[in-house]
Amino acid sequence: MPKTVAAFGEVMMRLAVPGYDLLSQASSLNYSFSGTGVNVASALSRFGHTGLLVTRLPQNPLGEAAAAYLRKLGIGSDFVQRGGSYLGLYFLENGFGARPSRVTYSNRLESSFNTAPEGAYDYAAIADKVDAVHFCGITLAMNDGVRAHMKALAQAVKARGGTVIFDCNYRPSLWGEQGYAAAKPHYEEMLALADIVFMNEKDAMLTLGMHTAAKERDEQLAELIPLVAERYGIRAIAGTHREIHGDNSHSLRGFLYKDGKLVRSKRLTFSVYDRIGAGDAFASGIIHGELERFEAERTVNFAAAAGMLAHTVAGDTPMASEQDVLRAVESSVGDVER
Amino acid sequence: MPKTVAAFGEVMMRLAVPGYDLLSQASSLNYSFSGTGVNVASALSRFGHTGLLVTRLPQNPLGEAAAAYLRKLGIGSDFVQRGGSYLGLYFLENGFGARPSRVTYSNRLESSFNTAPEGAYDYAAIADKVDAVHFCGITLAMNDGVRAHMKALAQAVKARGGTVIFDCNYRPSLWGEQGYAAAKPHYEEMLALADIVFMNEKDAMLTLGMHTAAKERDEQLAELIPLVAERYGIRAIAGTHREIHGDNSHSLRGFLYKDGKLVRSKRLTFSVYDRIGAGDAFASGIIHGELERFEAERTVNFAAAAGMLAHTVAGDTPMASEQDVLRAVESSVGDVER
Amino acid sequence: MPKTVAAFGEVMMRLAVPGYDLLSQASSLNYSFSGTGVNVASALSRFGHTGLLVTRLPQNPLGEAAAAYLRKLGIGSDFVQRGGSYLGLYFLENGFGARPSRVTYSNRLESSFNTAPEGAYDYAAIADKVDAVHFCGITLAMNDGVRAHMKALAQAVKARGGTVIFDCNYRPSLWGEQGYAAAKPHYEEMLALADIVFMNEKDAMLTLGMHTAAKERDEQLAELIPLVAERYGIRAIAGTHREIHGDNSHSLRGFLYKDGKLVRSKRLTFSVYDRIGAGDAFASGIIHGELERFEAERTVNFAAAAGMLAHTVAGDTPMASEQDVLRAVESSVGDVER
Amino acid sequence: MPKTVAAFGEVMMRLAVPGYDLLSQASSLNYSFSGTGVNVASALSRFGHTGLLVTRLPQNPLGEAAAAYLRKLGIGSDFVQRGGSYLGLYFLENGFGARPSRVTYSNRLESSFNTAPEGAYDYAAIADKVDAVHFCGITLAMNDGVRAHMKALAQAVKARGGTVIFDCNYRPSLWGEQGYAAAKPHYEEMLALADIVFMNEKDAMLTLGMHTAAKERDEQLAELIPLVAERYGIRAIAGTHREIHGDNSHSLRGFLYKDGKLVRSKRLTFSVYDRIGAGDAFASGIIHGELERFEAERTVNFAAAAGMLAHTVAGDTPMASEQDVLRAVESSVGDVER
Amino acid sequence: MPKTVAAFGEVMMRLAVPGYDLLSQASSLNYSFSGTGVNVASALSRFGHTGLLVTRLPQNPLGEAAAAYLRKLGIGSDFVQRGGSYLGLYFLENGFGARPSRVTYSNRLESSFNTAPEGAYDYAAIADKVDAVHFCGITLAMNDGVRAHMKALAQAVKARGGTVIFDCNYRPSLWGEQGYAAAKPHYEEMLALADIVFMNEKDAMLTLGMHTAAKERDEQLAELIPLVAERYGIRAIAGTHREIHGDNSHSLRGFLYKDGKLVRSKRLTFSVYDRIGAGDAFASGIIHGELERFEAERTVNFAAAAGMLAHTVAGDTPMASEQDVLRAVESSVGDVER
Amino acid sequence: MPKTVAAFGEVMMRLAVPGYDLLSQASSLNYSFSGTGVNVASALSRFGHTGLLVTRLPQNPLGEAAAAYLRKLGIGSDFVQRGGSYLGLYFLENGFGARPSRVTYSNRLESSFNTAPEGAYDYAAIADKVDAVHFCGITLAMNDGVRAHMKALAQAVKARGGTVIFDCNYRPSLWGEQGYAAAKPHYEEMLALADIVFMNEKDAMLTLGMHTAAKERDEQLAELIPLVAERYGIRAIAGTHREIHGDNSHSLRGFLYKDGKLVRSKRLTFSVYDRIGAGDAFASGIIHGELERFEAERTVNFAAAAGMLAHTVAGDTPMASEQDVLRAVESSVGDVER
Repeated sequence: MPKTVAAFGEVMMRLAVPGYDLLSQASSLNYSFSGTGVNVASALSRFGHTGLLVTRLPQNPLGEAAAAYLRKLGIGSDFVQRGGSYLGLYFLENGFGARPSRVTYSNRLESSFNTAPEGAYDYAAIADKVDAVHFCGITLAMNDGVRAHMKALAQAVKARGGTVIFDCNYRPSLWGEQGYAAAKPHYEEMLALADIVFMNEKDAMLTLGMHTAAKERDEQLAELIPLVAERYGIRAIAGTHREIHGDNSHSLRGFLYKDGKLVRSKRLTFSVYDRIGAGDAFASGIIHGELERFEAERTVNFAAAAGMLAHTVAGDTPMASEQDVLRAVESSVGDVER
Repeated sequence: MPKTVAAFGEVMMRLAVPGYDLLSQASSLNYSFSGTGVNVASALSRFGHTGLLVTRLPQNPLGEAAAAYLRKLGIGSDFVQRGGSYLGLYFLENGFGARPSRVTYSNRLESSFNTAPEGAYDYAAIADKVDAVHFCGITLAMNDGVRAHMKALAQAVKARGGTVIFDCNYRPSLWGEQGYAAAKPHYEEMLALADIVFMNEKDAMLTLGMHTAAKERDEQLAELIPLVAERYGIRAIAGTHREIHGDNSHSLRGFLYKDGKLVRSKRLTFSVYDRIGAGDAFASGIIHGELERFEAERTVNFAAAAGMLAHTVAGDTPMASEQDVLRAVESSVGDVER
Repeated sequence: MPKTVAAFGEVMMRLAVPGYDLLSQASSLNYSFSGTGVNVASALSRFGHTGLLVTRLPQNPLGEAAAAYLRKLGIGSDFVQRGGSYLGLYFLENGFGARPSRVTYSNRLESSFNTAPEGAYDYAAIADKVDAVHFCGITLAMNDGVRAHMKALAQAVKARGGTVIFDCNYRPSLWGEQGYAAAKPHYEEMLALADIVFMNEKDAMLTLGMHTAAKERDEQLAELIPLVAERYGIRAIAGTHREIHGDNSHSLRGFLYKDGKLVRSKRLTFSVYDRIGAGDAFASGIIHGELERFEAERTVNFAAAAGMLAHTVAGDTPMASEQDVLRAVESSVGDVER
Repeated sequence: MPKTVAAFGEVMMRLAVPGYDLLSQASSLNYSFSGTGVNVASALSRFGHTGLLVTRLPQNPLGEAAAAYLRKLGIGSDFVQRGGSYLGLYFLENGFGARPSRVTYSNRLESSFNTAPEGAYDYAAIADKVDAVHFCGITLAMNDGVRAHMKALAQAVKARGGTVIFDCNYRPSLWGEQGYAAAKPHYEEMLALADIVFMNEKDAMLTLGMHTAAKERDEQLAELIPLVAERYGIRAIAGTHREIHGDNSHSLRGFLYKDGKLVRSKRLTFSVYDRIGAGDAFASGIIHGELERFEAERTVNFAAAAGMLAHTVAGDTPMASEQDVLRAVESSVGDVER
Repeated sequence: MPKTVAAFGEVMMRLAVPGYDLLSQASSLNYSFSGTGVNVASALSRFGHTGLLVTRLPQNPLGEAAAAYLRKLGIGSDFVQRGGSYLGLYFLENGFGARPSRVTYSNRLESSFNTAPEGAYDYAAIADKVDAVHFCGITLAMNDGVRAHMKALAQAVKARGGTVIFDCNYRPSLWGEQGYAAAKPHYEEMLALADIVFMNEKDAMLTLGMHTAAKERDEQLAELIPLVAERYGIRAIAGTHREIHGDNSHSLRGFLYKDGKLVRSKRLTFSVYDRIGAGDAFASGIIHGELERFEAERTVNFAAAAGMLAHTVAGDTPMASEQDVLRAVESSVGDVER
Repeated sequence: MPKTVAAFGEVMMRLAVPGYDLLSQASSLNYSFSGTGVNVASALSRFGHTGLLVTRLPQNPLGEAAAAYLRKLGIGSDFVQRGGSYLGLYFLENGFGARPSRVTYSNRLESSFNTAPEGAYDYAAIADKVDAVHFCGITLAMNDGVRAHMKALAQAVKARGGTVIFDCNYRPSLWGEQGYAAAKPHYEEMLALADIVFMNEKDAMLTLGMHTAAKERDEQLAELIPLVAERYGIRAIAGTHREIHGDNSHSLRGFLYKDGKLVRSKRLTFSVYDRIGAGDAFASGIIHGELERFEAERTVNFAAAAGMLAHTVAGDTPMASEQDVLRAVESSVGDVER
């Protein structure tokens, strides 16, 4: 049965140099609007749910363009506020083979989202309407104002019995010199509120400071994730391991820890067209499985296939329907490495 | 010595989304005009023959654009009729890796070609002018009117001693619920008229309802194709086996059955840029070899290389000259898997 | 106070050759989705109302692209049905100066909208939700099925006290050989149901067969429009007179007949970028004024400015906000010819 | 009744900077292939005649692209030779308003056409096939080899009773320091061979060194053109007077001197999109009228309208059909200044 | 004799929607880099001088792209510093006719230029190298840090005998609520340092608070400009009066006050393609005339023609050479209104 | 410590068909300007040196566009002469997989560079300014005039103690029928002047006519390169061996012979986006290492990584900074085959 899910997060303008040119070679840019929340809300609405975004856009032509783009993606606008002056934006130069991609940010701290004042969002109204709410560690890194909105909204949803979802998504460049130390208390607050969490063994070790004698990441995962679930009272924890190959192909394997059991997806290997946003597609697949009460194995394979498909479309935002993902789960059998 | 060959078939407008975007993401389309007949007539004219198209285009700007495009391809327009109101068209969204391509058709049954009335084509005039005529199973699936034109033209050419070529090209979506049962009588009529036929073991089993105890497709082929040739009195039967690999590369191996002998081309493996139209390129290579009286082995290797090259150019229509194909026959030696 | 307005009509794909090239010169097309209903629903949502579309789209990638486009325009999708196989489409070659634009249609009678079966739309549910509903003479010309939907929906809305709006929009090419004679009874049915009607003196004379001794169109208008209003019991009738000048500029003057008074807008003269859809923008301005209970003079000047602005943006669909139109009403003072 | 007309001339690649950018600002170019002969042969085939080109193209990818483009334009390729190494080309930067357009040439003297050896063309075969042949003063300026081909072909056609057409088209930059003095003897040879000539009073005075006391160009024309016709035995002389206005509009008036009478077209004023090739469109209109034996007044108005329409399409080559021109002759009534 | 001139100012990225689309309609942007200083330095280098820019760019791919663009424009990079994190940017939606253009800014106060710390520029080294330095009122509006750099550099140049140029360029949106009152003391400081000033009667009245009984702007100008020159000890004051017409054409008339005499240029009327940057082109023309010691009348006509030409090229930055401007001075005679 | 290096060579306009279309399919071209000298001067300026070009460009819009492009690349223009009439140009059709790329040249012998008269370059002034000068075998193949400039400039630099660099770069198509025999004396003159030379064992055998009994190219290299160094008194000789794989990937291994020792780089395998110009990137890496007095092993690995990165950017000209190359040296470890 379709559910209503809100994602809380910033909308950014993505300005991508066409093809594989550098900014100093080209003279035009393709633009779209994205963000973790955008990606998750859009993916869930493609899976048949009502995906809403809780965000704040400027009252200017950039804000209108972003709002129109969100509507086009099928994202509900009930909680899209308008105010402030700026929209965060980033420039993307696609890498090729041995040359990595480059991302250059504008000053996103001045954005409408990151300067939303107290009272900007009506937590109670949102909590009344949604079955679940999604947050992300990138947002957590912004500033105290944003963090306050984030925690208050999580509490409001939890208080009304809704599901709180948190994607750890630690970005070193956003936490300044103190890094993990600065991040840890905020992460712990969110984990304590969360029902479904996206992370892997690295987050446990680095952000949460947990230890293990295991050397292989699969063992580390198997040891640490259950501890995290227990310590913070988390219903389900999911994540991926990725390998990057020399020929523009990647391998992806998802996991889902739930009810005391760690389930792994098949390892998928596939050619990559645009990798940004693939993690959000995986997360959306897990959330869909949880909302629809799939069995764990079905959920994690669905999520991995959703993640794989997100590497095959332009832009950050997953475009696959539930049917597309199911077809990929089936047909990828032949391509899977056992 | 160059020959004159007519192809009978519909011209469709191909509207391709640029790059790997979906229709719901993009805002522009690249258009060209194609069709099996277009592809074969164009390829043969690049090999030095006179390639003509027998078709019907609307008397409107779309018809003019199509006619200009055919001329650009070097296709003779003597038998291109003008009349009716519509041009069939299809939309192409390119797949990438795990995401398959999608084709969406307009209502082609209303097209000028598919509504050509009795008397639209002067069979005798065509038969007088050509050394050979090419037909395709897609056309055979359209409607009774088109089938009547098709058979009458084949008979007229045969009656004047010309060569009749038929490419089975069975498309399940075009034959409705009755499928093979509906198709079989029409296919048998065409096979009885044909001198050169394109098909493989699947057509023999599914369309013609033939049986074999063999399990491997190579064995099935070796057993069934000679039977087909004998039953319908066909001079030469050719076709391909294709394998699709995970990394956007394909393998192709052609065969030619003639004078009681089944000859196979080298197995070619190559990167794929645009696979549509490659079967027509293979067919054109076989026709060229037959028209020029190449030995069977030379013909089938020429055709396979022509098919391979057609995967490397944009659009449906082969662009390789005879010289290009010969160079590929040579140079591919190093890349060939034995 | 914002209202909820539904527009009933077909969505068509517009495939425009970029710049001023012909189809036989170019190789790419820009696409968007439009239609009278699309334009009116979108314009009203830009003026602050809830604009809904009642239509039917195919369940394929074209239908998805159209649905996403409608959402982007801010049009509510509650009554957008999915079914049938085809989307109507047209090709546009922009004229320049002495060379007129050319439009080439696909076979729109096969479209999902024009083949919607009985029961496709829930008239009662729509009527319950809307304050007003908009119809157009183009839709009326399609076929009996569409006309049946149209009249049933108009009756349902009227029965619940909603406002019925009808834009005469007579297109000679759509009514076949019998022309006005075939159209008249259907037009009269719709006029009898309508509260607000768009037409001018030509419709009165040609479609409705009314007569006048007046020679000047302004006099004809002043004489005939009140008679139409009285005969069919119409609350408000509005329309425009347009003059086309040699230098790519047009003049537009709107009128609104209401409460026994014929009010005229200023005559606006302006440069034209894309004239398609400008009539719908004018209509939307009138509807907005009526919904907001503006005085007649304010309404007609607002509508004329909205029509003018629609000539200045690419595509068929008006993009101006209420504020944009109000600014144009003010600032155009200097440019207006008295 | 349709005729067969050959045009003798060079095919050049036109490399136009898109929009109004300069070469030092942009990074892409749009290319097409043109030339006076191309324009005339194409225009005549659009008017229903068989338009052929007598030219020489290199045996390389540029030559193929040019040949394909000529076919697309509907130009017959029977006398298109292949040989030599280079294709002439020019770069076009579009001017805007006060900033004039700029054209930059490659070294066209090395082109396949301008280095065609003796025996490159079969004059007799061409003369046997055509009703008329067209030459141009630009070609006359190239070098002795080209001039020899030109005169020999004119003589061959004349000898077989065909019509010889010559467009004076004097380009100062091509004749070096001696200018008119160098050109005069060659022009006189061509005029002596020609039946139909394009020129105006300036050519008479400057190239042919004729004198008149008249000051106004209309009087000069009326005095000198009959003298030219008489001196060189020319059946018909036609040309245009053009005025350029400040707002990107031009005025054009054509004349035709024939049977001792000078007939003038209406003066047409129109917006200009791409003015290159408009003179060739006018010439093609005159040729069409002469081939079809129109009355002089009809011919010159047809030609002027054809010239006007050529200003409204992209590229050098006229794209209007006879029907398009006839419609423009009618509808332009309203725009004509008397 | 060519001189060396530095301009002090911010480089901004211009992101323009192609054609006349809105940001909410399009999906790509054309980018370039501009600013008053960029425009003046580039224009002067096209007139044969050495144009340098004193600015600060971020050490990231945007900074590289900007630096490469400046070099392409021919601007000397000796005093282009690298540091800070952001580049100011703005989005441009082109208006058409009745619909005005819209500009949307990013938060430029965070840019590398506007956060340049004390010591960022070596005033003495700059002053040693240049004959003149150019400043602009937009820069003056930024913040105290920028103002401090600006005044210190002006003093350094003045102290070494160089020429100080100041363009008043008052932008209301940049001075906050106090507006003119906040601006006045800073403007007075700059005027006291300046040798050449760009302004008109409005600046005198609004920014400097001067009064006049005259009603016509020509009279106000004639009365106030000499007073300004005297009060602040300014050698030359120049500026323009502009009129905007309905048909995308403008009229421009320049003035130059010097040696007690007010000289006016011809009034030029012309079609407009891209008006941004035209004021900088006029200013560059005046500076060129002053550096080259033209007579006042020649200078002001040269500057007006340079301003006119800047309306005919894409982008903010003038592209005309001295020769281009001189040709426009001549040829525009015919188009000039007296 | 950064050095000043001049490269002597022709600037050519590169006109590339976008994507993988053929010239006869497409209608637009992307242009840039390149040449061995351009590539080397640009790469060295990215590595922190002052890279200058000694060349001659026409005094027309193509020359301006080329000059602006060179400045954008960061190349110093002190010795860029203006004169002559033409710019050499070539058309590039990108191959795909089994279909090779095609290059079509204009007549470059007429270019401004190849017609530079005696006295066009001030050898002494150049030699005074530079630490090193770079020449290439392509230039050596042009004509006697160019060769005279080349040798005179090499002598002038050598005479002042500068380093002379020569890249053998033998192109068979440029030396006519006599081939190696014609080339040998000129190559020997340049080798005798050179301090650093780029070549491999093939050049030694074919151009210089040296012999070896070895069969493997690695052995041939090890035997012949020291002999060449000794015979011509060359300080350092470097070059590469390349293997081309079926999947659009190449392997590259560089070598550097110096101080009696032959050092080899790691063998790098990588995906290829645009291979043109990669040899110049390798050469620039070697030159950088020599100028900065790196150890031989560091130099050759730096050069190989620079060569690899040049395959990953669009266009002929290397865009990597020293830091980019160093990162690739590090990170490629994982991808390297041992």
